[in-house]
Amino acid sequence: MQRYAHILDLVRERNPLVHQITNYVTVNDCANMTICFGASPVMSHAPEDVVDMIKIAGVLVLNIGTLDENQIEGMLAAANGAKKCGIPIVLDPVGAGATPYRTQTAERFMNEFPISVVKGNAGEISTLAGVSATVRGVDSGSISGDPKETARRYAKEYGCTVVISGAEDIVSDGKRVVGVLNGVPMMGKISGTGCMASAVCGAFTAVTDPMDGCIAAMTALGIAGEEAAKTAKGPGSFKPAFFDAAAALTKEQFLKSAKITEYS
Amino acid sequence: MQRYAHILDLVRERNPLVHQITNYVTVNDCANMTICFGASPVMSHAPEDVVDMIKIAGVLVLNIGTLDENQIEGMLAAANGAKKCGIPIVLDPVGAGATPYRTQTAERFMNEFPISVVKGNAGEISTLAGVSATVRGVDSGSISGDPKETARRYAKEYGCTVVISGAEDIVSDGKRVVGVLNGVPMMGKISGTGCMASAVCGAFTAVTDPMDGCIAAMTALGIAGEEAAKTAKGPGSFKPAFFDAAAALTKEQFLKSAKITEYS
Amino acid sequence: MQRYAHILDLVRERNPLVHQITNYVTVNDCANMTICFGASPVMSHAPEDVVDMIKIAGVLVLNIGTLDENQIEGMLAAANGAKKCGIPIVLDPVGAGATPYRTQTAERFMNEFPISVVKGNAGEISTLAGVSATVRGVDSGSISGDPKETARRYAKEYGCTVVISGAEDIVSDGKRVVGVLNGVPMMGKISGTGCMASAVCGAFTAVTDPMDGCIAAMTALGIAGEEAAKTAKGPGSFKPAFFDAAAALTKEQFLKSAKITEYS
Repeated sequence: MQRYAHILDLVRERNPLVHQITNYVTVNDCANMTICFGASPVMSHAPEDVVDMIKIAGVLVLNIGTLDENQIEGMLAAANGAKKCGIPIVLDPVGAGATPYRTQTAERFMNEFPISVVKGNAGEISTLAGVSATVRGVDSGSISGDPKETARRYAKEYGCTVVISGAEDIVSDGKRVVGVLNGVPMMGKISGTGCMASAVCGAFTAVTDPMDGCIAAMTALGIAGEEAAKTAKGPGSFKPAFFDAAAALTKEQFLKSAKITEYS
Repeated sequence: MQRYAHILDLVRERNPLVHQITNYVTVNDCANMTICFGASPVMSHAPEDVVDMIKIAGVLVLNIGTLDENQIEGMLAAANGAKKCGIPIVLDPVGAGATPYRTQTAERFMNEFPISVVKGNAGEISTLAGVSATVRGVDSGSISGDPKETARRYAKEYGCTVVISGAEDIVSDGKRVVGVLNGVPMMGKISGTGCMASAVCGAFTAVTDPMDGCIAAMTALGIAGEEAAKTAKGPGSFKPAFFDAAAALTKEQFLKSAKITEYS
Repeated sequence: MQRYAHILDLVRERNPLVHQITNYVTVNDCANMTICFGASPVMSHAPEDVVDMIKIAGVLVLNIGTLDENQIEGMLAAANGAKKCGIPIVLDPVGAGATPYRTQTAERFMNEFPISVVKGNAGEISTLAGVSATVRGVDSGSISGDPKETARRYAKEYGCTVVISGAEDIVSDGKRVVGVLNGVPMMGKISGTGCMASAVCGAFTAVTDPMDGCIAAMTALGIAGEEAAKTAKGPGSFKPAFFDAAAALTKEQFLKSAKITEYS
């Protein structure tokens, strides 16, 4: 547990630059949550800009929540730069499974680039892994099979870390499978929790290996959510409290509250 | 009154998918307010994506607050899909009357598609209805004539439901004219209330007829605003309280607080 | 001091229309902060739209935080319109110094248009002024030389007002150099404070001369930050409190709290 808690301090110490190309719905939340955990967000999507921005970044986070052809062009340029520089890439395949355009774009990035982390809900990841699933807009529907097995198999196939967010988050690198039980239902009652999780997975992956980084990231975000829910009167007041709790989260609180299960 | 209050429950029960193509200023507020009322928002604007997304949606909400040629192209593709599938379309003609580009774009959608609901401020709707009015940026200025008559006439001409937001919201389907007196001035002191109203009109229209749906939507949003104003210290704290109140709004509170006037 | 405090009232009285072409990260904050200080925001970036919108605006604010070719095209059209109509232009060169694309775009606007105000952090302004500096993403790094001298020289060279934000904000029109010590570190712990400052500098510049306007704007925003920090539990709760404090700021409080130093 100490090693996960330590990553929290590492991010704050190293303050990695998290280059994000993301959707226009939750981008402000992603920027603020990145700051709350001690990293620096920079949003840049123009092909002319990303080629230089990626060189000074510690990680690239791609989120296809409101993708279009222009944005994909920028994502490709940034991902190529990340590949060349050996910078890890985190992909959030928002809405994969809901439309072919989203599914195919996510698959394209998975196949053409050395993705370090792919983080989505059960429906999105199952879709990419070829498991029968339904995705409604950006929300997960029913899925077939055991998400732990889906995560492990897909992670192994692509040599990456897979994060399936849910009541229990599943994280796998193809060998280990870990569950994170931190978090509260209120996190699903605001727009942007999934996107913020990807940003935080990015910030943590910038300072350590993706598997440990994502376990720590999902745990930290979950604990912040639990803290925020204690005082929130609804989804509106939950959000400011969520940021407050993330910014205030200490190593000690992490150690006390983390619910991490090593399944294998 | 029971029939309007009932719609509140219907939305929460059916959880319609509200496909929104909207401006980048208030999009996060629209997503969150959609969730607060029990519907699911999905933002998608790429022509390649909207053709499939619209098929699983319960309603399409178009908001031209920060329109450009690319976005209009996506809106046209989505509207064509909605037309084919018989999915209702809600149009928010933000800034119509302020610039010819906005006025003409709004007119184009009114003329080319079976718009179910057009919701704007008095200046925007008056402009579209050919009534002398001034619009300053995205704010309504002075208008000529009686907004009730403007709403009724324009609704009749286009066979749609017209919502004019204001101190008293006016809703008309060309026959009936209804006023909603719920709401507080603070709602006009934050960016996004009008856009959120369109999103909520969309969510309600997805589960019932547009006229009743919009009356219920404007009433529900107004009551949430009244509740939020009770504790808010200013526009900053009003916003989280607004979302909290919307999420907590019950049928009972709706029945107790609704101020709906059937004018004819 | 009275003359700065008076500008606060002037903005609320005249309610200028602040035409903003800005980044998609903090645009909602910019809109809300503009309203809090009594001005009206309008976001419009399509070349077809800006040519008419700029005609009714009191000021144009350009922020290159998430620039791309399409947005630059809209900015050029708007800036040309502003130039023709004699409307002041405020430029926020976000990330200049971090990438050549940002630096060159900022330089292009400085060279081709009569910019009234350029507002950035020390790294951004130093980069534009040809002083050795580092910029990391959108955050200032180390700089060479005295920022007061950099501001004065660059302001003189371009015949504009230069604002360097920081622990002490520096404002210069090439002759006078003024420091503003209002503000708190928490303002740097949320995304968007710099962008909001540019929007408020714009609102104030719309009603008075740029030098006095920017001094008053930076002071007013700093005081609002100080007030908000008194009750905030973290960056999340700071933000709503920041808006509340800005909206509630009176001339009396301004006079009591302003920390303005006329250096020369």
